[in-house]
Amino acid sequence: MRLRHKPWAREKIEAHPQYVILQPEEQKGRWKEAFQNDHPIYIEVGTGKGQFVTEMAKAHPDVNFIGIEVYESVMVTALDRLIEAELPNLKLLNVDAENLTDYFEKGEVSRVYLNFSDPWPKKRHAKRRLTYKTFLKRYEDIMPASGEIHFKTDNQGLFEFSLMSFSEYGMLLKFVSLDLHNSDFEGNIMTEYEEKFSAKGQRIYRAEAAFRS
Amino acid sequence: MRLRHKPWAREKIEAHPQYVILQPEEQKGRWKEAFQNDHPIYIEVGTGKGQFVTEMAKAHPDVNFIGIEVYESVMVTALDRLIEAELPNLKLLNVDAENLTDYFEKGEVSRVYLNFSDPWPKKRHAKRRLTYKTFLKRYEDIMPASGEIHFKTDNQGLFEFSLMSFSEYGMLLKFVSLDLHNSDFEGNIMTEYEEKFSAKGQRIYRAEAAFRS
Repeated sequence: MRLRHKPWAREKIEAHPQYVILQPEEQKGRWKEAFQNDHPIYIEVGTGKGQFVTEMAKAHPDVNFIGIEVYESVMVTALDRLIEAELPNLKLLNVDAENLTDYFEKGEVSRVYLNFSDPWPKKRHAKRRLTYKTFLKRYEDIMPASGEIHFKTDNQGLFEFSLMSFSEYGMLLKFVSLDLHNSDFEGNIMTEYEEKFSAKGQRIYRAEAAFRS
Repeated sequence: MRLRHKPWAREKIEAHPQYVILQPEEQKGRWKEAFQNDHPIYIEVGTGKGQFVTEMAKAHPDVNFIGIEVYESVMVTALDRLIEAELPNLKLLNVDAENLTDYFEKGEVSRVYLNFSDPWPKKRHAKRRLTYKTFLKRYEDIMPASGEIHFKTDNQGLFEFSLMSFSEYGMLLKFVSLDLHNSDFEGNIMTEYEEKFSAKGQRIYRAEAAFRS
């Protein structure tokens, strides 16, 4: 994604503490309080401009969503969407996915979404891929037994790597589509990137993988 | 595959007992004797006209190959190739894959190849797919711990199903390619079908899955 420097981004984020959780360490183990209900919490890691997580929150009012995005200049667009939509079941987190366990207790997150994550195609950067085993460990550490990762990408190499990584970690592949937009999968909500690239005829790959207890 | 009735096929098969094992039950536990060496045995289930297994046997003289094909009218073409090539490390078996454990002891087969198996696309026929769990059980029962299945297909639905089936069975995905002919995989030997369909631009999918002990 192209990043533009937005010097006003930090200020805008801090002006909306009802949407962007500013001290997420303090929320650890207490996310139910932030949402004021017991609904399950699904997070999207790498939420970008927020179309996916916003539309998911609209479509699933009985689920609480948290969009996590490390770049504040990107997250402000997600914040604009949220200000516009005024969704009580969506929060944003401007943090690095490496530190997920600082913000969530074991079992506090019921599902992790990864959409069009950076493929880091060079082998020496494999550790940075969000489906690398160290990241899988972090997701496992914040989900209950049999917690699921729902993953979409148009990047063939990242998808191949991720299937093998899920398998090596001992996860169960519950769903695999090698051409999501020409399948009978229902209820797909597209990211900005997905709309653009699928319109060009790019295949979209999708998998659901569950941790095994 | 189009099947033509060839009334002379049975006679031709029976005339070549050095290549086609006619009483395979009697060979169970004694395949080393048939090959007169201790080399590992790799089988191809659904060997068709035999191009793959013949070329593999030529390329890997230190491995013994067995091509298994249930249709005798198809197997005679594989037999013709074998008569022509005179390969000491290749035998053919005209049997049904359902009965593999009648012909091989546990651990007697080191690897199973499945190439362009019938996709049986209808859900009610899923049990007939050669990567369905009952078939995986048969392969497991004739291989050592961590025995591998090497699988190729151009059928997207069969590949998706097979990845999930391997995973559900607890197997480890050691290799996944979603476009074999545009990958850096080396040493690929093509089947007749693969040559034809990849020339039309059809993607070839390939996976290696190992049983976990």
